[in-house]
Amino acid sequence: MNKRVAVFRKEHFNAAHRLYNRQWDDATNFRVFGKCSNPHYHGHNYELEVRVTGEPQADTGFVMDMKVLSDLIQQYVIEHFDHKNLNLDIPEFKDINPTAENIAVVIYNLLRPHVSEKQELRIRLYETPRNFVEYPA
Amino acid sequence: MNKRVAVFRKEHFNAAHRLYNRQWDDATNFRVFGKCSNPHYHGHNYELEVRVTGEPQADTGFVMDMKVLSDLIQQYVIEHFDHKNLNLDIPEFKDINPTAENIAVVIYNLLRPHVSEKQELRIRLYETPRNFVEYPA
Amino acid sequence: MNKRVAVFRKEHFNAAHRLYNRQWDDATNFRVFGKCSNPHYHGHNYELEVRVTGEPQADTGFVMDMKVLSDLIQQYVIEHFDHKNLNLDIPEFKDINPTAENIAVVIYNLLRPHVSEKQELRIRLYETPRNFVEYPA
Amino acid sequence: MNKRVAVFRKEHFNAAHRLYNRQWDDATNFRVFGKCSNPHYHGHNYELEVRVTGEPQADTGFVMDMKVLSDLIQQYVIEHFDHKNLNLDIPEFKDINPTAENIAVVIYNLLRPHVSEKQELRIRLYETPRNFVEYPA
Amino acid sequence: MNKRVAVFRKEHFNAAHRLYNRQWDDATNFRVFGKCSNPHYHGHNYELEVRVTGEPQADTGFVMDMKVLSDLIQQYVIEHFDHKNLNLDIPEFKDINPTAENIAVVIYNLLRPHVSEKQELRIRLYETPRNFVEYPA
Amino acid sequence: MNKRVAVFRKEHFNAAHRLYNRQWDDATNFRVFGKCSNPHYHGHNYELEVRVTGEPQADTGFVMDMKVLSDLIQQYVIEHFDHKNLNLDIPEFKDINPTAENIAVVIYNLLRPHVSEKQELRIRLYETPRNFVEYPA
Repeated sequence: MNKRVAVFRKEHFNAAHRLYNRQWDDATNFRVFGKCSNPHYHGHNYELEVRVTGEPQADTGFVMDMKVLSDLIQQYVIEHFDHKNLNLDIPEFKDINPTAENIAVVIYNLLRPHVSEKQELRIRLYETPRNFVEYPA
Repeated sequence: MNKRVAVFRKEHFNAAHRLYNRQWDDATNFRVFGKCSNPHYHGHNYELEVRVTGEPQADTGFVMDMKVLSDLIQQYVIEHFDHKNLNLDIPEFKDINPTAENIAVVIYNLLRPHVSEKQELRIRLYETPRNFVEYPA
Repeated sequence: MNKRVAVFRKEHFNAAHRLYNRQWDDATNFRVFGKCSNPHYHGHNYELEVRVTGEPQADTGFVMDMKVLSDLIQQYVIEHFDHKNLNLDIPEFKDINPTAENIAVVIYNLLRPHVSEKQELRIRLYETPRNFVEYPA
Repeated sequence: MNKRVAVFRKEHFNAAHRLYNRQWDDATNFRVFGKCSNPHYHGHNYELEVRVTGEPQADTGFVMDMKVLSDLIQQYVIEHFDHKNLNLDIPEFKDINPTAENIAVVIYNLLRPHVSEKQELRIRLYETPRNFVEYPA
Repeated sequence: MNKRVAVFRKEHFNAAHRLYNRQWDDATNFRVFGKCSNPHYHGHNYELEVRVTGEPQADTGFVMDMKVLSDLIQQYVIEHFDHKNLNLDIPEFKDINPTAENIAVVIYNLLRPHVSEKQELRIRLYETPRNFVEYPA
Repeated sequence: MNKRVAVFRKEHFNAAHRLYNRQWDDATNFRVFGKCSNPHYHGHNYELEVRVTGEPQADTGFVMDMKVLSDLIQQYVIEHFDHKNLNLDIPEFKDINPTAENIAVVIYNLLRPHVSEKQELRIRLYETPRNFVEYPA
């Protein structure tokens, strides 16, 4: 039988962004992205849910110590993104548009090297309580 | 590697319903469905969560524009169901019992033609904060 | 110094209703209440928050035993309203329109005789997570 | 007896801002406001809760039609603030720092002329789920 | 096409616990589990989400009557765990550490015999709103 | 006009407790407090909401820097209570019963000396999402 358990840890960060494709002129950006493309930016309280799946260790009963997982997310994501402008302050978004989809992929890539290869990793990111994404799906 | 991302959009509607199998007499309906079969109806604030899974487009970074998804749900579900009596006002429930399970299947069928065939669709419907369903499972 | 503490207990019920003034014709009801006046009813998950304010008793440390408060709400409100049609099944709404404001006043009047006169009572009623009322204000 | 009822309506907007006192140099701003003073801005999903207190009207049972209240908030606040940069795009913050406290006072002043003088108005503004303010207190 | 629907029911219980491996001395327990190993215990409001997946029955439209599912959870889990000390009062944790992962596995094993073999069962357990687990993953 | 604004900061802690009056024998404790008096304790995720009311400072726009308020709560409450047994580990509850009412009064008294005398202080404490208290009321 399947012995794998998934553990989830939620963290949050606040950031500004605008949706913008630098290959397009402003009129095209505005037509496609609407008010989300406001050149002075807008922002969100992002809620980040990180899921790690694996077998619990026999001696601790942990798939992964939640304190360790929380510290990893702090170190590799929150300190990097919190109270920042995603377009201007985060090198990962120099060439890609900071949609929720792309932010989730970037966060996955930042965390993946720090989680055991035997464990599966998945990111859920809430841009608002009504709009959110998951990667990988 | 899996490049698919899932995007989720939440909408809500308020509706009355009763659980009722027209093949059965009232006593049987009451025995099986209890107070949920009250002939004068009761109601819920339904929270609807629609999930669309696919690859983000290279130029927008969107799996699907959330505004477009929200408009689809408004047009094909919310305008149809909101502030209605599911048993009396919605033709889809003329012959089927408006359980949360069946409502989720009906909503899936209403939305499926309007989402790209390359994309997967899944419905989560909260009847109350403590009772909810997902289709397909 | 003020020694009074407020205790709050949340309960919920599901009900159908329509907004309707029987002094008016249907066209007027529809003009004033819009889709909330749908003759086949719609419904809500009502969240009810009851606040009782008083001095904690020296021996228990309770303003009021939450179990007792919960039982009172069950007996005088929930069993009365849950899975009902407010317009048709609840005598209190025979002559008054079941707006959230009026439902809160009715609930206050149902509970007031069962709470000590030395204690203050206040009702908060959520019709949806975005629409709610308080009485007395 | 007090016949007044309070009605509440929740709306939301997303905006970018930075905390900044233009009388101070950048070092002072950074010392006082920390990362909230990041010159490239950060942002929030603001949840706005508007409370109007008055006596319900005899014929409708409404203190105020929630649809009318929602429309007022849309017209005078949301269309003005949503997906904007509070510091750059909103004239009200040209000379005052967009703290949650000041935003709540500005929103109060925008709405006050449009609510009956017989009715009391109060604003609650959530900057994050853990930080919020009320005005007047 | 897949006709399976998942139904979810949420219940809660409050319990005390400490993380503790009886093979280890106190210093090792404290080094590994930190404040979660406080010998006088601490506690949580556990939120339990039970998911049952199967095909809806033709006559009821139910995968499983939510009332029946709620009663099963009450009988086999809540009455057993609520307002208890997991380490001292629950025989299942005599030899295993009551981490969220292990509690979810124990709950799964308690419920599995009471759900139809044709139906899939999954447990989600929230230890806090920010830490939760799922089994099987 | 009233220029006062209230600011709120939410923090949380997890703790074990039992309701118990040491003047009474066990049978009386059990009769009055029921399962809340389990001698092996049970526990909660307490959500603490601290409200400070005053006039915003002209130069910062803050009633009180939320970072300062959060640090005060951490220092005087959370480090003291988190992952503890309220009955055994917290001297304040040596002689008083750790009901939600009494915990709120104790927290008020711990914080009051550290908030300006010109400012009003109020505590809201959630023992569960459905049971909570406020002091002073």
